[in-house]
Amino acid sequence: MHVQVTVTLRTSILDPQGKAVEHGIHSMGFTSVGNVRIGKIVDLDIDTTDGKEALRVAEEIAKKLLANPVMEDFTVTLVRNGEHRK
Amino acid sequence: MHVQVTVTLRTSILDPQGKAVEHGIHSMGFTSVGNVRIGKIVDLDIDTTDGKEALRVAEEIAKKLLANPVMEDFTVTLVRNGEHRK
Repeated sequence: MHVQVTVTLRTSILDPQGKAVEHGIHSMGFTSVGNVRIGKIVDLDIDTTDGKEALRVAEEIAKKLLANPVMEDFTVTLVRNGEHRK
Repeated sequence: MHVQVTVTLRTSILDPQGKAVEHGIHSMGFTSVGNVRIGKIVDLDIDTTDGKEALRVAEEIAKKLLANPVMEDFTVTLVRNGEHRK
């Protein structure tokens, strides 16, 4: 099973990397762009045929290792045949 | 309009960061996990009410600034009312 974990900074947390990218975008002339925020994607394969079990494992990994619960939110999505399902 | 750009390494490119995370996951006892790959998310607001125009701008920004066309693939997705649409 292929699972995608996304990790994003909470909206209350400042994102200097996002601000730097926003500055770069504005320098290129795209002045209509704002509120740029950077996050992470972690794609992983889990050796099981049970989608629920795969999501459970991925959620535990995200909580314990991939996301900082103080500053970040995460989502866990099952990817099947190129599609994303929550 | 809120657009999400995802940038991922091409599958033919080695991903040492992913390998390191995979090692960490295995150390935690989750030995069923493999093929871990790390990518980026860039969320941005574009000041237009035209979804097609927002996607066009985001794609141009992704091509010119966010993704390295030699090593990375990207997707551009319109986010409306909490949902993701290609």
